[in-house]
Amino acid sequence: MLFSNLKLNNKDPIYIQIKNHIEIMISKGLIPDNSKLPSTRELSQFLNVSRNSIISAYEELKADGVIYSVYGKGTFVNHKNESVNKSWNVDFNCLENEQIKIANDMDIVKSEIPWRDDLISFKSIAPNGALFDIDEFKKAFLNRISLEGHKILNYGYAKGYKPLIDYLLSYMNSKGVDTSNKDILITNGFTEGLEIILSSFTEKDDYIICENPTHNTAKKIFKFLGLNIVGIDIDNDGLNFNMLEEKLDFLEKKGIKPKFAYITPSYHNPTGMVMDPENRYRFYKLMKKYNIPIIEDGFNEELLYSSSHIFPIASLDNLNNGVVYIGSFSKILFPGLRIGWILCDKSVISRIESVKRCKSIHVSFLDQAVLYDYLSSGAFEKYVKKIKKFYGEKFNYAYECVKKYIPNEYILGEGGLHIFIKLKNINSRKLLEKCYDKGVIFMPGDIFYVNEKGEDTLRLGFSRLSFEEIEKGIKIIGDSINSFHN
Amino acid sequence: MLFSNLKLNNKDPIYIQIKNHIEIMISKGLIPDNSKLPSTRELSQFLNVSRNSIISAYEELKADGVIYSVYGKGTFVNHKNESVNKSWNVDFNCLENEQIKIANDMDIVKSEIPWRDDLISFKSIAPNGALFDIDEFKKAFLNRISLEGHKILNYGYAKGYKPLIDYLLSYMNSKGVDTSNKDILITNGFTEGLEIILSSFTEKDDYIICENPTHNTAKKIFKFLGLNIVGIDIDNDGLNFNMLEEKLDFLEKKGIKPKFAYITPSYHNPTGMVMDPENRYRFYKLMKKYNIPIIEDGFNEELLYSSSHIFPIASLDNLNNGVVYIGSFSKILFPGLRIGWILCDKSVISRIESVKRCKSIHVSFLDQAVLYDYLSSGAFEKYVKKIKKFYGEKFNYAYECVKKYIPNEYILGEGGLHIFIKLKNINSRKLLEKCYDKGVIFMPGDIFYVNEKGEDTLRLGFSRLSFEEIEKGIKIIGDSINSFHN
Repeated sequence: MLFSNLKLNNKDPIYIQIKNHIEIMISKGLIPDNSKLPSTRELSQFLNVSRNSIISAYEELKADGVIYSVYGKGTFVNHKNESVNKSWNVDFNCLENEQIKIANDMDIVKSEIPWRDDLISFKSIAPNGALFDIDEFKKAFLNRISLEGHKILNYGYAKGYKPLIDYLLSYMNSKGVDTSNKDILITNGFTEGLEIILSSFTEKDDYIICENPTHNTAKKIFKFLGLNIVGIDIDNDGLNFNMLEEKLDFLEKKGIKPKFAYITPSYHNPTGMVMDPENRYRFYKLMKKYNIPIIEDGFNEELLYSSSHIFPIASLDNLNNGVVYIGSFSKILFPGLRIGWILCDKSVISRIESVKRCKSIHVSFLDQAVLYDYLSSGAFEKYVKKIKKFYGEKFNYAYECVKKYIPNEYILGEGGLHIFIKLKNINSRKLLEKCYDKGVIFMPGDIFYVNEKGEDTLRLGFSRLSFEEIEKGIKIIGDSINSFHN
Repeated sequence: MLFSNLKLNNKDPIYIQIKNHIEIMISKGLIPDNSKLPSTRELSQFLNVSRNSIISAYEELKADGVIYSVYGKGTFVNHKNESVNKSWNVDFNCLENEQIKIANDMDIVKSEIPWRDDLISFKSIAPNGALFDIDEFKKAFLNRISLEGHKILNYGYAKGYKPLIDYLLSYMNSKGVDTSNKDILITNGFTEGLEIILSSFTEKDDYIICENPTHNTAKKIFKFLGLNIVGIDIDNDGLNFNMLEEKLDFLEKKGIKPKFAYITPSYHNPTGMVMDPENRYRFYKLMKKYNIPIIEDGFNEELLYSSSHIFPIASLDNLNNGVVYIGSFSKILFPGLRIGWILCDKSVISRIESVKRCKSIHVSFLDQAVLYDYLSSGAFEKYVKKIKKFYGEKFNYAYECVKKYIPNEYILGEGGLHIFIKLKNINSRKLLEKCYDKGVIFMPGDIFYVNEKGEDTLRLGFSRLSFEEIEKGIKIIGDSINSFHN
């Protein structure tokens, strides 16, 4: 196209006209630095002139230093050509709004201590990938592709892949949730689910209730959206209901109506506590009384012992619409796929479906289809049985080691993939520095607190560590604590 | 766990104590309707009492109508048990903010005419899935899984899968873009890319410049974020530069600085026009003069003829940072995977990486890895060659049919997957009604306009239609137009 407006005349030599045309285009900035020119053959055909004319034009331009050839690659515009477009520097810092600043300030990945190969890391609570059943996953992929073909590679629906939605509805039903007035939206993991709900139903400066400490990603999204956070303490005895009732009273008296209450009842992150049925009911009843819808984070619920009769809070909701449940297998299964779901009132799903469509159209249909195949084949049940045993043993071992080696105020955790420790007046960031020198890292607890508390707490994730590493690492943490007193 | 706080005494009969405990739990709402009770065997073991006691307790409860048994399934809590939790109805409508309302109001899927099996649909510009090379895709999946194993199923990085990022950087480089000061963030398709950029660098009531008509998803996101849209007309002659300069002047005089200028230079949606190199340069220079960063939508650039020497506007930017390029193969390849990318200044990528992490952690690593394998295997090049021919022939055929059958003011489109038609004083929505009755649908053009214009325009997508359907459908549209005059 760069040559389509070149009109050749009969006066000047063809190669000179071509040479001039290229020079003008380059000087106008229409052919960028280092970009490739058409081959002499292509151009001669396109302009319908002899190839020799093109060769001559290119040779002249090379002699002038305007273009250069790379053997076997082609002819390119020289870098030293100073186009008109130098030095336009947009000051994007100045354009940044509050949200991107908060997302950066609160991005713990950016403030992490540097990784070393020899570290025993208790930081992560990601699942151990070595436990993933790759063969079953492959089977699921091949099966879905042969059944669905190109359909799962083309555009799908914002709500999600229908068989997966149906599977999850009956899955939630098997957990005791009445799904007759509920529906599901598939999201890019828990994180997008929470972001979609909050960005649809809250405004800047609204109030949200949550546990303190709480999931740091949730806390980040609250701040990102400019919400005021009302934290309710969790300690040795679980959620402090007295404090919750006082705060609810206080807010009501001030005429403030919190938009949502966010809660992680099972293997709470970071404390690892499991809320018992009575307290789930008590919490539900309180929120109902104050008419504050609950956002229930189904985090790691799958790891509850199989004989457990603990139900999600959503199961208490029956035909009401007071609970928005956000689920995800990511915490134990294929987090790389980023698939989660929101279960709530049908009419709410139909509204947030449009928000999902607006923000990212839909979640990968390939991933949804393969996950559905994997789940419905029975491979998931087998997997959960396997990992419950695996993580259960790891948890018990780690717990014993903590009791043995780490002087503490108290230890929290009832299974799952992590343990939470409150130290006796030891700053966990200072402790982390000492431990890092000795090759051990963990997650300082303060990042989970919505106020200035938690500086003497830490979270230990053990999913990817061997028994030996667990004992060695925890012993090093204990020794480091003891060295504070010497 | 529901039974873990049951303390059996030595006075009352065991089965009575168990019966009472279950009744209390149910009446408290702690065991939801229709949920399953443990089997008599499980419970007798858990409580360490004789199985007969459990059987007796369950029999009594059954007699009272509190629970019921399903043969081969187990024992369940009766539905007629009216728990305390009736009638909590949160009014989510009232909680909705402006964004979710706009996302719904502008969701064209929700206002679509009902689908019928016998329709010839010119509505979609999605690629024809029958052209996807499923075998190559399978190969890419199996190859990546065998090379990377569980790594691509576990958590990855917010920025994206490194090999894919590197591939795309060199891909952009091959299009003439100097990438030495640039970096890439992988996004859930173009849509999330645009949303991330705008939601990071704009505030409500900011101004954005775009073509009029423009991509309806982009328009939806502008409105969703509360931006003021300054539309610059596109007509038979392409972008109206006089109007652009006037608007820029006018805004400057009023002290208004638009945050971005959004542009789709290749196979513009909906007009199908390709901006020529001179106008790309002119546009770039103007935005540079006014210091308004450009968001370039790389939409369907891949379909440009292979001999083409048209470069993205980003290639004019050299070492500047004035262009944010958003790319996606989705429009021609595997849209179901939802993979796009933002290419811009390194420091900007490092900032928006945190926004991506905050909103949805990262794009599916499985999908990124498989796409990378597919692209780098050479399968993509083969595919593009194939579809260029396929869609090229379809375009030419459709174009000839439009010229032949549809009375028009002008026809726009230079290839790609769609054609844009300005009718002579015919309302395209009224036309659509007529055509729908005759089994043909298309996209009314008004949805692409940022003002009240375009009611006499329409877009025809033909990617999934046969030659026969194209001719038949276009003839029906033409006939319907003629029937207006009778």
